[in-house]
Amino acid sequence: MNAVDQGAVVDLLGVLAYAELTAFDRLAEDARLAPTLAGHAALAQMAAAELGHHARLTARLAELGADPTAAMAPFVAALDAFHDSTRPHTWLEGLVKAYVGDGLAGDFYREIAAFLPDPDRALILDVLADTGHADFAVREVRAAIATNRTLSGRLALWGRRLVGEAITQSQAVIAERDRLARLIIEGTGDLAGVGRLVERITAAHTKRMRALGLNP
Amino acid sequence: MNAVDQGAVVDLLGVLAYAELTAFDRLAEDARLAPTLAGHAALAQMAAAELGHHARLTARLAELGADPTAAMAPFVAALDAFHDSTRPHTWLEGLVKAYVGDGLAGDFYREIAAFLPDPDRALILDVLADTGHADFAVREVRAAIATNRTLSGRLALWGRRLVGEAITQSQAVIAERDRLARLIIEGTGDLAGVGRLVERITAAHTKRMRALGLNP
Repeated sequence: MNAVDQGAVVDLLGVLAYAELTAFDRLAEDARLAPTLAGHAALAQMAAAELGHHARLTARLAELGADPTAAMAPFVAALDAFHDSTRPHTWLEGLVKAYVGDGLAGDFYREIAAFLPDPDRALILDVLADTGHADFAVREVRAAIATNRTLSGRLALWGRRLVGEAITQSQAVIAERDRLARLIIEGTGDLAGVGRLVERITAAHTKRMRALGLNP
Repeated sequence: MNAVDQGAVVDLLGVLAYAELTAFDRLAEDARLAPTLAGHAALAQMAAAELGHHARLTARLAELGADPTAAMAPFVAALDAFHDSTRPHTWLEGLVKAYVGDGLAGDFYREIAAFLPDPDRALILDVLADTGHADFAVREVRAAIATNRTLSGRLALWGRRLVGEAITQSQAVIAERDRLARLIIEGTGDLAGVGRLVERITAAHTKRMRALGLNP
Protein backbone atom coordinates (compact mmCIF):
# COMPACT_ATOMS: atom_id res chain seq x y z
CA MET A 1 0.00 0.00 0.00
CA ASN A 2 1.30 3.47 -0.82
CA ALA A 3 1.82 5.90 2.01
CA VAL A 4 -1.53 7.46 2.80
CA ASP A 5 -1.91 11.24 2.77
CA GLN A 6 -2.18 12.23 6.45
CA GLY A 7 -4.65 14.91 5.42
CA ALA A 8 -7.01 12.25 4.07
CA VAL A 9 -6.80 10.39 7.39
CA VAL A 10 -7.74 13.59 9.23
CA ASP A 11 -10.60 14.12 6.76
CA LEU A 12 -11.97 10.64 7.33
CA LEU A 13 -11.67 10.87 11.12
CA GLY A 14 -13.22 14.35 10.96
CA VAL A 15 -16.25 13.39 8.87
CA LEU A 16 -16.83 10.34 11.05
CA ALA A 17 -16.49 12.32 14.29
CA TYR A 18 -19.13 14.76 13.09
CA ALA A 19 -21.30 11.92 11.77
CA GLU A 20 -21.24 10.30 15.23
CA LEU A 21 -22.13 13.59 16.94
CA THR A 22 -25.09 14.09 14.61
CA ALA A 23 -26.05 10.43 15.07
CA PHE A 24 -26.24 11.17 18.78
CA ASP A 25 -28.44 14.23 18.16
CA ARG A 26 -30.73 12.40 15.83
CA LEU A 27 -31.15 9.21 17.84
CA ALA A 28 -31.75 11.29 20.97
CA GLU A 29 -34.41 13.26 19.11
CA ASP A 30 -36.04 10.19 17.57
CA ALA A 31 -36.07 8.44 20.96
CA ARG A 32 -38.83 10.82 21.96
CA LEU A 33 -41.02 9.42 19.17
CA ALA A 34 -40.93 6.02 20.89
CA PRO A 35 -44.35 4.60 21.77
CA THR A 36 -43.03 3.19 25.06
CA LEU A 37 -40.58 4.31 27.76
CA ALA A 38 -38.57 1.12 27.11
CA GLY A 39 -38.24 1.99 23.40
CA HIS A 40 -37.37 5.54 24.36
CA ALA A 41 -34.56 4.35 26.65
CA ALA A 42 -33.33 1.81 24.05
CA LEU A 43 -32.83 4.46 21.38
CA ALA A 44 -31.32 6.84 23.93
CA GLN A 45 -28.76 4.12 24.83
CA MET A 46 -27.81 3.85 21.14
CA ALA A 47 -27.39 7.62 21.04
CA ALA A 48 -25.06 7.50 24.05
CA ALA A 49 -22.98 4.76 22.36
CA GLU A 50 -22.53 6.97 19.27
CA LEU A 51 -21.34 9.79 21.47
CA GLY A 52 -18.72 7.45 22.95
CA HIS A 53 -17.48 6.83 19.40
CA HIS A 54 -17.38 10.57 18.76
CA ALA A 55 -15.17 11.00 21.83
CA ARG A 56 -12.74 8.29 20.65
CA LEU A 57 -12.45 9.84 17.19
CA THR A 58 -11.83 13.36 18.49
CA ALA A 59 -9.23 11.97 20.94
CA ARG A 60 -7.43 10.36 17.99
CA LEU A 61 -7.60 13.61 15.99
CA ALA A 62 -6.04 15.47 18.92
CA GLU A 63 -3.35 12.77 19.16
CA LEU A 64 -2.53 13.37 15.47
CA GLY A 65 -2.11 17.07 16.24
CA ALA A 66 -5.33 18.02 14.45
CA ASP A 67 -7.92 20.36 15.98
CA PRO A 68 -11.13 18.26 16.13
CA THR A 69 -13.40 21.23 15.46
CA ALA A 70 -11.41 22.21 12.38
CA ALA A 71 -11.34 18.60 11.18
CA MET A 72 -15.14 18.31 11.47
CA ALA A 73 -15.93 21.73 10.02
CA PRO A 74 -15.74 20.87 6.28
CA PHE A 75 -18.46 18.21 6.71
CA VAL A 76 -20.96 20.07 8.88
CA ALA A 77 -22.99 21.54 6.02
CA ALA A 78 -23.39 18.28 4.05
CA LEU A 79 -24.28 16.14 7.07
CA ASP A 80 -26.68 18.72 8.44
CA ALA A 81 -28.31 18.96 4.99
CA PHE A 82 -28.70 15.18 4.91
CA HIS A 83 -30.40 15.10 8.30
CA ASP A 84 -32.58 18.13 7.60
CA SER A 85 -33.85 16.53 4.40
CA THR A 86 -34.50 13.16 6.05
CA ARG A 87 -36.07 14.08 9.38
CA PRO A 88 -38.28 11.14 10.44
CA HIS A 89 -41.90 11.96 11.22
CA THR A 90 -42.68 8.69 12.92
CA TRP A 91 -41.00 6.23 15.23
CA LEU A 92 -40.75 3.66 12.42
CA GLU A 93 -39.23 6.13 9.95
CA GLY A 94 -36.64 6.88 12.63
CA LEU A 95 -35.83 3.19 13.04
CA VAL A 96 -35.55 2.63 9.27
CA LYS A 97 -33.22 5.60 9.10
CA ALA A 98 -31.13 4.29 12.01
CA TYR A 99 -30.80 0.88 10.36
CA VAL A 100 -30.75 1.57 6.61
CA GLY A 101 -29.18 5.03 6.67
CA ASP A 102 -26.50 4.29 9.26
CA GLY A 103 -25.89 0.90 7.63
CA LEU A 104 -25.20 2.51 4.28
CA ALA A 105 -22.97 5.20 5.74
CA GLY A 106 -21.13 2.60 7.82
CA ASP A 107 -20.42 0.45 4.76
CA PHE A 108 -19.08 3.44 2.91
CA TYR A 109 -16.78 4.53 5.74
CA ARG A 110 -15.60 0.95 6.24
CA GLU A 111 -14.65 0.65 2.57
CA ILE A 112 -12.53 3.80 2.81
CA ALA A 113 -11.03 2.82 6.18
CA ALA A 114 -9.70 -0.34 4.52
CA PHE A 115 -7.22 1.87 2.64
CA LEU A 116 -5.76 3.31 5.85
CA PRO A 117 -2.95 1.91 7.99
CA ASP A 118 -3.54 0.97 11.64
CA PRO A 119 -4.33 2.22 14.26
CA ASP A 120 -6.78 4.42 12.33
CA ARG A 121 -8.16 1.54 10.32
CA ALA A 122 -8.86 -0.52 13.46
CA LEU A 123 -10.31 2.48 15.31
CA ILE A 124 -12.76 3.26 12.51
CA LEU A 125 -13.85 -0.37 12.08
CA ASP A 126 -14.36 -0.57 15.82
CA VAL A 127 -16.51 2.54 16.17
CA LEU A 128 -18.57 1.43 13.18
CA ALA A 129 -19.34 -1.95 14.76
CA ASP A 130 -23.07 -2.27 15.40
CA THR A 131 -24.26 -0.80 18.69
CA GLY A 132 -27.51 -2.72 18.76
CA HIS A 133 -29.35 -0.64 16.13
CA ALA A 134 -29.72 -3.56 13.81
CA ASP A 135 -31.52 -6.18 15.88
CA PHE A 136 -33.70 -3.66 17.63
CA ALA A 137 -34.80 -1.88 14.43
CA VAL A 138 -35.40 -5.09 12.50
CA ARG A 139 -37.54 -6.51 15.29
CA GLU A 140 -39.67 -3.38 15.72
CA VAL A 141 -40.16 -2.67 12.02
CA ARG A 142 -41.02 -6.28 11.13
CA ALA A 143 -43.52 -6.43 14.00
CA ALA A 144 -45.18 -3.19 12.84
CA ILE A 145 -45.40 -4.33 9.22
CA ALA A 146 -46.87 -7.66 10.27
CA THR A 147 -49.87 -5.95 11.86
CA ASN A 148 -50.23 -3.13 9.30
CA ARG A 149 -49.22 -4.09 5.78
CA THR A 150 -49.96 -0.72 4.16
CA LEU A 151 -47.00 0.59 6.14
CA SER A 152 -44.48 -1.45 4.17
CA GLY A 153 -44.98 0.48 0.92
CA ARG A 154 -44.55 3.80 2.67
CA LEU A 155 -41.45 2.68 4.58
CA ALA A 156 -39.92 1.22 1.39
CA LEU A 157 -40.27 4.61 -0.30
CA TRP A 158 -38.70 6.21 2.77
CA GLY A 159 -35.76 3.81 2.53
CA ARG A 160 -35.22 4.73 -1.13
CA ARG A 161 -35.37 8.42 -0.31
CA LEU A 162 -32.69 7.95 2.37
CA VAL A 163 -30.36 6.38 -0.20
CA GLY A 164 -30.96 9.14 -2.72
CA GLU A 165 -30.19 11.88 -0.20
CA ALA A 166 -27.15 10.01 1.11
CA ILE A 167 -25.71 9.70 -2.40
CA THR A 168 -26.32 13.38 -3.15
CA GLN A 169 -24.58 14.51 0.03
CA SER A 170 -21.63 12.11 -0.18
CA GLN A 171 -20.96 13.19 -3.77
CA ALA A 172 -20.97 16.81 -2.58
CA VAL A 173 -18.43 15.98 0.13
CA ILE A 174 -16.10 14.01 -2.13
CA ALA A 175 -16.25 16.65 -4.87
CA GLU A 176 -15.02 19.21 -2.36
CA ARG A 177 -12.34 17.14 -0.65
CA ASP A 178 -9.72 16.27 -3.25
CA ARG A 179 -7.59 14.22 -0.90
CA LEU A 180 -10.54 12.03 0.09
CA ALA A 181 -11.42 11.49 -3.58
CA ARG A 182 -7.79 10.59 -4.32
CA LEU A 183 -7.74 8.14 -1.42
CA ILE A 184 -10.78 6.34 -2.83
CA ILE A 185 -9.50 6.22 -6.40
CA GLU A 186 -6.01 5.10 -5.37
CA GLY A 187 -7.37 2.63 -2.84
CA THR A 188 -9.75 0.95 -5.25
CA GLY A 189 -7.10 0.97 -7.99
CA ASP A 190 -9.14 2.47 -10.82
CA LEU A 191 -12.66 3.45 -11.86
CA ALA A 192 -13.66 -0.20 -12.24
CA GLY A 193 -12.63 -0.62 -8.60
CA VAL A 194 -14.83 2.31 -7.62
CA GLY A 195 -17.67 0.62 -9.51
CA ARG A 196 -17.19 -2.59 -7.53
CA LEU A 197 -17.15 -0.63 -4.27
CA VAL A 198 -20.50 0.96 -5.18
CA GLU A 199 -21.86 -2.48 -6.11
CA ARG A 200 -20.86 -3.95 -2.74
CA ILE A 201 -22.51 -1.07 -0.90
CA THR A 202 -25.68 -1.39 -2.98
CA ALA A 203 -25.90 -5.13 -2.40
CA ALA A 204 -25.59 -4.68 1.36
CA HIS A 205 -28.28 -2.01 1.26
CA THR A 206 -30.65 -4.34 -0.61
CA LYS A 207 -30.03 -7.02 2.00
CA ARG A 208 -30.86 -4.63 4.83
CA MET A 209 -34.13 -3.51 3.20
CA ARG A 210 -35.12 -7.19 2.81
CA ALA A 211 -34.21 -7.87 6.44
CA LEU A 212 -36.76 -5.21 7.44
CA GLY A 213 -39.33 -6.87 5.18
CA LEU A 214 -39.23 -3.93 2.74
CA ASN A 215 -39.01 -3.93 -1.04
CA PRO A 216 -35.56 -2.44 -1.88
CA MET B 1 -35.34 4.82 61.64
CA ASN B 2 -38.77 3.24 61.16
CA ALA B 3 -39.17 0.64 58.43
CA VAL B 4 -39.62 2.51 55.17
CA ASP B 5 -42.66 1.75 53.01
CA GLN B 6 -41.29 -0.22 50.06
CA GLY B 7 -43.83 1.54 47.83
CA ALA B 8 -42.26 4.88 48.70
CA VAL B 9 -38.84 3.54 47.71
CA VAL B 10 -40.25 2.42 44.35
CA ASP B 11 -41.86 5.86 43.95
CA LEU B 12 -38.61 7.66 44.60
CA LEU B 13 -36.61 5.39 42.29
CA GLY B 14 -39.36 5.73 39.66
CA VAL B 15 -39.53 9.51 39.69
CA LEU B 16 -35.74 9.73 39.59
CA ALA B 17 -35.49 7.20 36.73
CA TYR B 18 -37.91 9.27 34.66
CA ALA B 19 -36.19 12.49 35.70
CA GLU B 20 -32.87 11.11 34.41
CA LEU B 21 -34.44 10.01 31.11
CA THR B 22 -35.94 13.47 30.57
CA ALA B 23 -32.64 15.04 31.64
CA PHE B 24 -31.04 13.05 28.81
CA ASP B 25 -33.67 14.28 26.33
CA ARG B 26 -33.34 17.84 27.39
CA LEU B 27 -29.55 18.05 27.55
CA ALA B 28 -29.35 16.32 24.15
CA GLU B 29 -31.78 18.88 22.74
CA ASP B 30 -30.06 21.85 24.35
CA ALA B 31 -26.67 20.62 23.12
CA ARG B 32 -27.73 21.66 19.65
CA LEU B 33 -28.05 25.26 20.83
CA ALA B 34 -24.32 25.27 21.57
CA PRO B 35 -22.35 27.97 19.76
CA THR B 36 -19.40 25.60 19.23
CA LEU B 37 -18.93 21.91 18.41
CA ALA B 38 -16.93 21.53 21.64
CA GLY B 39 -19.83 22.94 23.68
CA HIS B 40 -22.21 20.73 21.74
CA ALA B 41 -20.17 17.62 22.59
CA ALA B 42 -19.76 18.70 26.24
CA LEU B 43 -23.51 18.94 26.82
CA ALA B 44 -24.08 15.71 24.88
CA GLN B 45 -21.60 13.96 27.22
CA MET B 46 -23.61 15.16 30.22
CA ALA B 47 -26.76 13.81 28.57
CA ALA B 48 -25.11 10.41 28.13
CA ALA B 49 -24.08 10.40 31.81
CA GLU B 50 -27.71 11.01 32.85
CA LEU B 51 -28.79 8.09 30.73
CA GLY B 52 -26.30 5.88 32.54
CA HIS B 53 -28.00 6.91 35.80
CA HIS B 54 -31.38 6.09 34.33
CA ALA B 55 -30.15 2.59 33.49
CA ARG B 56 -28.86 2.02 37.05
CA LEU B 57 -32.16 3.14 38.57
CA THR B 58 -34.31 0.96 36.30
CA ALA B 59 -32.00 -1.99 37.00
CA ARG B 60 -32.58 -1.47 40.74
CA LEU B 61 -36.36 -1.22 40.21
CA ALA B 62 -36.30 -4.52 38.33
CA GLU B 63 -34.21 -6.05 41.15
CA LEU B 64 -36.92 -4.97 43.61
CA GLY B 65 -39.49 -6.74 41.45
CA ALA B 66 -41.01 -3.50 40.19
CA ASP B 67 -41.77 -2.86 36.53
CA PRO B 68 -39.69 0.23 35.63
CA THR B 69 -42.27 1.57 33.19
CA ALA B 70 -45.05 1.29 35.78
CA ALA B 71 -42.83 2.89 38.43
CA MET B 72 -42.08 5.88 36.17
CA ALA B 73 -45.63 6.31 34.84
CA PRO B 74 -47.12 8.34 37.75
CA PHE B 75 -44.48 11.04 37.26
CA VAL B 76 -44.48 11.42 33.48
CA ALA B 77 -47.16 14.14 33.32
CA ALA B 78 -45.64 16.38 36.01
CA LEU B 79 -42.07 16.13 34.72
CA ASP B 80 -43.14 16.64 31.11
CA ALA B 81 -45.19 19.67 32.19
CA PHE B 82 -42.15 21.10 33.97
CA HIS B 83 -39.95 20.73 30.90
CA ASP B 84 -42.60 21.99 28.49
CA SER B 85 -43.08 25.13 30.57
CA THR B 86 -39.33 25.76 30.92
CA ARG B 87 -37.98 25.05 27.46
CA PRO B 88 -34.78 27.10 27.01
CA HIS B 89 -34.67 29.38 23.99
CA THR B 90 -30.96 30.05 24.15
CA TRP B 91 -27.78 28.16 24.97
CA LEU B 92 -27.37 30.19 28.20
CA GLU B 93 -30.93 29.54 29.34
CA GLY B 94 -30.22 25.84 28.81
CA LEU B 95 -27.08 26.03 30.94
CA VAL B 96 -28.84 27.92 33.74
CA LYS B 97 -31.56 25.27 33.66
CA ALA B 98 -28.99 22.46 33.75
CA TYR B 99 -27.23 24.03 36.74
CA VAL B 100 -29.98 25.75 38.75
CA GLY B 101 -32.88 23.45 37.88
CA ASP B 102 -31.02 20.16 38.19
CA GLY B 103 -29.28 21.47 41.31
CA LEU B 104 -32.61 22.22 42.97
CA ALA B 105 -34.13 18.88 41.97
CA GLY B 106 -30.99 17.07 43.08
CA ASP B 107 -31.08 18.68 46.54
CA PHE B 108 -34.72 17.72 46.93
CA TYR B 109 -34.15 14.07 45.94
CA ARG B 110 -31.07 13.89 48.17
CA GLU B 111 -33.06 15.12 51.18
CA ILE B 112 -35.66 12.38 50.64
CA ALA B 113 -33.04 9.71 49.91
CA ALA B 114 -31.55 10.40 53.37
CA PHE B 115 -34.68 8.76 54.85
CA LEU B 116 -34.10 5.51 52.93
CA PRO B 117 -31.99 2.52 53.97
CA ASP B 118 -29.05 1.38 51.83
CA PRO B 119 -28.46 0.29 49.09
CA ASP B 120 -31.13 2.65 47.72
CA ARG B 121 -29.86 5.62 49.66
CA ALA B 122 -26.30 5.14 48.36
CA LEU B 123 -27.52 4.50 44.80
CA ILE B 124 -29.54 7.71 44.72
CA LEU B 125 -26.76 9.83 46.23
CA ASP B 126 -24.37 8.35 43.69
CA VAL B 127 -26.50 9.02 40.60
CA LEU B 128 -27.14 12.56 41.85
CA ALA B 129 -23.43 13.31 42.16
CA ASP B 130 -22.44 16.07 39.77
CA THR B 131 -21.58 14.93 36.24
CA GLY B 132 -19.71 18.07 35.29
CA HIS B 133 -22.75 20.30 34.79
CA ALA B 134 -21.72 22.65 37.54
CA ASP B 135 -18.23 23.78 36.54
CA PHE B 136 -19.05 23.91 32.85
CA ALA B 137 -22.26 25.93 33.29
CA VAL B 138 -20.75 28.33 35.80
CA ARG B 139 -17.78 29.01 33.55
CA GLU B 140 -19.86 29.61 30.40
CA VAL B 141 -22.55 31.73 32.07
CA ARG B 142 -20.08 33.90 33.98
CA ALA B 143 -18.05 34.48 30.81
CA ALA B 144 -21.19 35.50 28.88
CA ILE B 145 -22.38 37.87 31.61
CA ALA B 146 -18.94 39.47 31.82
CA THR B 147 -19.12 40.56 28.18
CA ASN B 148 -22.85 41.38 28.11
CA ARG B 149 -24.22 42.67 31.38
CA THR B 150 -27.82 43.14 30.24
CA LEU B 151 -28.00 39.36 30.07
CA SER B 152 -27.70 38.94 33.82
CA GLY B 153 -31.11 40.48 34.58
CA ARG B 154 -32.82 38.28 32.00
CA LEU B 155 -31.10 35.09 33.19
CA ALA B 156 -31.90 35.94 36.83
CA LEU B 157 -35.61 36.14 35.93
CA TRP B 158 -35.25 32.82 34.10
CA GLY B 159 -33.71 31.25 37.21
CA ARG B 160 -36.65 32.44 39.34
CA ARG B 161 -39.14 31.09 36.83
CA LEU B 162 -37.42 27.68 36.97
CA VAL B 163 -37.86 27.58 40.75
CA GLY B 164 -41.51 28.59 40.55
CA GLU B 165 -42.32 25.88 38.00
CA ALA B 166 -40.32 23.28 39.93
CA ILE B 167 -42.26 24.03 43.14
CA THR B 168 -45.61 23.87 41.33
CA GLN B 169 -44.82 20.50 39.79
CA SER B 170 -43.28 18.90 42.86
CA GLN B 171 -46.31 19.93 44.95
CA ALA B 172 -48.54 18.30 42.35
CA VAL B 173 -46.52 15.07 42.55
CA ILE B 174 -46.45 14.94 46.36
CA ALA B 175 -50.17 15.74 46.63
CA GLU B 176 -50.88 12.71 44.46
CA ARG B 177 -48.44 10.26 46.04
CA ASP B 178 -49.52 9.77 49.66
CA ARG B 179 -46.69 7.40 50.46
CA LEU B 180 -44.05 9.88 49.25
CA ALA B 181 -45.68 12.64 51.32
CA ARG B 182 -45.71 10.36 54.37
CA LEU B 183 -42.05 9.50 53.84
CA ILE B 184 -41.13 13.19 53.87
CA ILE B 185 -43.24 14.04 56.93
CA GLU B 186 -42.04 11.01 58.89
CA GLY B 187 -38.46 11.49 57.78
CA THR B 188 -38.27 15.15 58.78
CA GLY B 189 -40.12 14.43 62.04
CA ASP B 190 -42.79 17.12 61.84
CA LEU B 191 -43.87 20.23 59.95
CA ALA B 192 -41.05 22.27 61.49
CA GLY B 193 -38.70 19.64 60.02
CA VAL B 194 -40.30 20.10 56.59
CA GLY B 195 -39.78 23.84 57.01
CA ARG B 196 -36.08 23.35 57.70
CA LEU B 197 -35.78 21.06 54.66
CA VAL B 198 -37.28 23.78 52.44
CA GLU B 199 -34.92 26.32 54.02
CA ARG B 200 -31.87 24.20 53.24
CA ILE B 201 -32.96 23.75 49.63
CA THR B 202 -33.65 27.48 49.25
CA ALA B 203 -30.26 28.41 50.70
CA ALA B 204 -28.46 26.07 48.28
CA HIS B 205 -30.43 27.55 45.38
CA THR B 206 -29.43 31.09 46.38
CA LYS B 207 -25.81 30.00 46.52
CA ARG B 208 -26.00 28.51 43.00
CA MET B 209 -27.55 31.67 41.53
CA ARG B 210 -24.74 33.72 43.12
CA ALA B 211 -22.14 31.30 41.72
CA LEU B 212 -23.48 32.08 38.24
CA GLY B 213 -23.22 35.79 38.99
CA LEU B 214 -27.02 36.14 39.04
CA ASN B 215 -29.26 37.92 41.56
CA PRO B 216 -31.28 35.16 43.28
